[in-house]
Amino acid sequence: MDRKKIKLNIDNIKPFIDQKSLDALTPEIIAADEKIKKGTGKGANFLGWLHLPSRTDKKLISDINNIAGEVRKNKSILLCIGIGGSYLGSRAGIEFLSPLFSNKRGIGGEGVFFCGNNLNSDYIEDLLGSLEKDADIYVNVISKSGTTIEPALAFRLVYDYMRKRYDKKELTKRVICTTDKEKGALKKMASQQGFRTFVIPDDVGGRFSVLTPVGLFPMACAGVNIEELLNGAADLEQDVSKEKIETIDAYKYAAVRNALYRQGKHIEILSDFHPSLHSVLEWCKQLLAESEGKEGKGIFPSIADFTTDLHAIGQLIQQGARNIFETFVIMQASGKKAQIPQLEEDIDQLNYLAGKTLDYVDSMAYRGTVQAHTTGGVPNMTLQIPERSAYCLGQIYYFFEISVAVSGYLLGINPFDQPGVEAYKNNMYKLLNKPR
Amino acid sequence: MDRKKIKLNIDNIKPFIDQKSLDALTPEIIAADEKIKKGTGKGANFLGWLHLPSRTDKKLISDINNIAGEVRKNKSILLCIGIGGSYLGSRAGIEFLSPLFSNKRGIGGEGVFFCGNNLNSDYIEDLLGSLEKDADIYVNVISKSGTTIEPALAFRLVYDYMRKRYDKKELTKRVICTTDKEKGALKKMASQQGFRTFVIPDDVGGRFSVLTPVGLFPMACAGVNIEELLNGAADLEQDVSKEKIETIDAYKYAAVRNALYRQGKHIEILSDFHPSLHSVLEWCKQLLAESEGKEGKGIFPSIADFTTDLHAIGQLIQQGARNIFETFVIMQASGKKAQIPQLEEDIDQLNYLAGKTLDYVDSMAYRGTVQAHTTGGVPNMTLQIPERSAYCLGQIYYFFEISVAVSGYLLGINPFDQPGVEAYKNNMYKLLNKPR
Repeated sequence: MDRKKIKLNIDNIKPFIDQKSLDALTPEIIAADEKIKKGTGKGANFLGWLHLPSRTDKKLISDINNIAGEVRKNKSILLCIGIGGSYLGSRAGIEFLSPLFSNKRGIGGEGVFFCGNNLNSDYIEDLLGSLEKDADIYVNVISKSGTTIEPALAFRLVYDYMRKRYDKKELTKRVICTTDKEKGALKKMASQQGFRTFVIPDDVGGRFSVLTPVGLFPMACAGVNIEELLNGAADLEQDVSKEKIETIDAYKYAAVRNALYRQGKHIEILSDFHPSLHSVLEWCKQLLAESEGKEGKGIFPSIADFTTDLHAIGQLIQQGARNIFETFVIMQASGKKAQIPQLEEDIDQLNYLAGKTLDYVDSMAYRGTVQAHTTGGVPNMTLQIPERSAYCLGQIYYFFEISVAVSGYLLGINPFDQPGVEAYKNNMYKLLNKPR
Repeated sequence: MDRKKIKLNIDNIKPFIDQKSLDALTPEIIAADEKIKKGTGKGANFLGWLHLPSRTDKKLISDINNIAGEVRKNKSILLCIGIGGSYLGSRAGIEFLSPLFSNKRGIGGEGVFFCGNNLNSDYIEDLLGSLEKDADIYVNVISKSGTTIEPALAFRLVYDYMRKRYDKKELTKRVICTTDKEKGALKKMASQQGFRTFVIPDDVGGRFSVLTPVGLFPMACAGVNIEELLNGAADLEQDVSKEKIETIDAYKYAAVRNALYRQGKHIEILSDFHPSLHSVLEWCKQLLAESEGKEGKGIFPSIADFTTDLHAIGQLIQQGARNIFETFVIMQASGKKAQIPQLEEDIDQLNYLAGKTLDYVDSMAYRGTVQAHTTGGVPNMTLQIPERSAYCLGQIYYFFEISVAVSGYLLGINPFDQPGVEAYKNNMYKLLNKPR
């Protein structure tokens, strides 16, 4: 099959890491691969994401598409309530695949708005206040427990708003819960009120949940082809299961990152040259930071949107402290082609580019940047994305998931837990006098 | 006068830096202060920003407000073309002061869109394609030289679009250039075509230009009270000129950051708890990174939007590598008050919060986070912002500008140049076969 595969290029690592150091990591990579595939490593009860692409039930996909079709029919607004892994994946997907501007509402004009990802009055009040009186509104609330404070409080406010707007029957139709299959506050409420539900599997953690209904349903509501998305991920899943360890790009990525980390490169800049990739990198950032950042270890991930950020943190990348490395995530083809027009008199002296596309210039900016950063002492790799398609997006998700699992085991930590996230919550609950 | 002042709290630094180490920096701070005030340090020909707040001509303010009033009259769209310091400051201001959602177009419904800050076809085509046929459009192109490739190419495309849309007379009225007072391609074109212009002063670099027409005009077009903005900055300017060195918050901020940097804390996380602050921190990030990141030195700045990012990089901040410190930038009052409603049966067990506002819970999340990060070994400070007002925003701008000037001199570098930004450009021009 001749499908468009994402590809990692590590040529620019050579001036910084010799092949021997990389080869020396192979036994550790093999051990990590075995832990993942046999489920013998730390956190092995959260490996459900591993076979989601190939094993997702056709019935589930059609259920998701059916309800999403209902939402899309009247050009409804979807208020999607979730935090962390319960919104970053679908936001990434929707922004990756939608127009960057639209005169219709919601991300890319697709009607989806996210909330429940902060505790801010202005945010929720401005959002609800901006909804037209005749807008058709659906709600998707995403929470395993139903008691995580941000989405739970947002849901209270949104539910209150919906009750004023719709009668009981309409309301029941318009709230879709993505939650635990049997326990928890949200599941209980859904059962009592007759809300439709999707299940978050027990063996999939929040940041690995993008290919469960957590990510799939909001994306389907925005018109994303979720079968193609799963196909992309499934093809990568198959490569990982069949290819030789040394040839798997996601493993190479883990190995190079680990080798650089051991050299004292403690900051990774994830750099894109296409605005639609920004939220994809936000999703990556969470996945990497929350999986690796523990036991005093972990690479600090940061995002740069180029060329704009070449005029922001570009100076620091070029000449600042040499504790950074860079992963370019590059879109090889834009959807549109903006052709540079001729200008009389050539006042700005750019007529030599007339007739070329903006993206041609962008691709040269990318190449120029790679050269500059390599020369400036910044080790870098490039993940090449052939196009803005659901098929490529599915590969991106799976690439980073499998890679961070390997990388976590190379660091000797559990890549699937997040014990540190409780600290602020416990303090907050005390300050709020939460009843025991 | 009883005006709302921003304030820095450094109490949580105490477990990490003793007062003696801070006091030891005082002579260096005094020396830096002198370099700035007497213009005897590196880059002294770019100190024009220092007295912009107090010395900006009333005539300039009224010119800006007059043209902005013309733009606002017909609820026009403003296409604002600029990159780096030529857009980050005004975007920050507009997002800080506008609703977070609106059913009108542009940032906060104020009609302003930014472009020319990347080289992406999808971005510019989607933006122009989203403009309604009957929309009234103005353009503000911001570039000192007129030949910076991103804004220059965007201007070619936008100019082409405008020529198809408006006749010569209308077009001339609708393009406003912010550029050099006498030289450069954009100035030349403005003179030839009769476009109205604003001047970028020679002694103000891009990232320090927010209080020149570069930032003031787009903000005025979005309805920002630029006099109040300048008043806020001017009050801080006066404090810096009159107060004792040891009591100036912006200098304390520079001293603490430098002391932490010397301890090996090489990453600064700028953390907000209000979405309207995100772009303000993006502006800060550019200012800090481009001013400090040179000669192999500099703190790496990164942004976290809480509470959402507590569920993203929160784990890493709490338990990852201890090479980070944190600067909270906290809004003390939101504009709206979302009151938490009672829920029958209390299924989510949050009725104990009913009647409280979302922001009350947010403030406890902030306090809980500060405790957790302090305990977790992350030195942290808090810059308190009393309210979302132009007066406070003006103070924020000046605070970070004067602080990074001091900080740059503490590092022994020139805080006002950016020699590293040329590297990628030179490579790119070669790849594009730019004629000499």
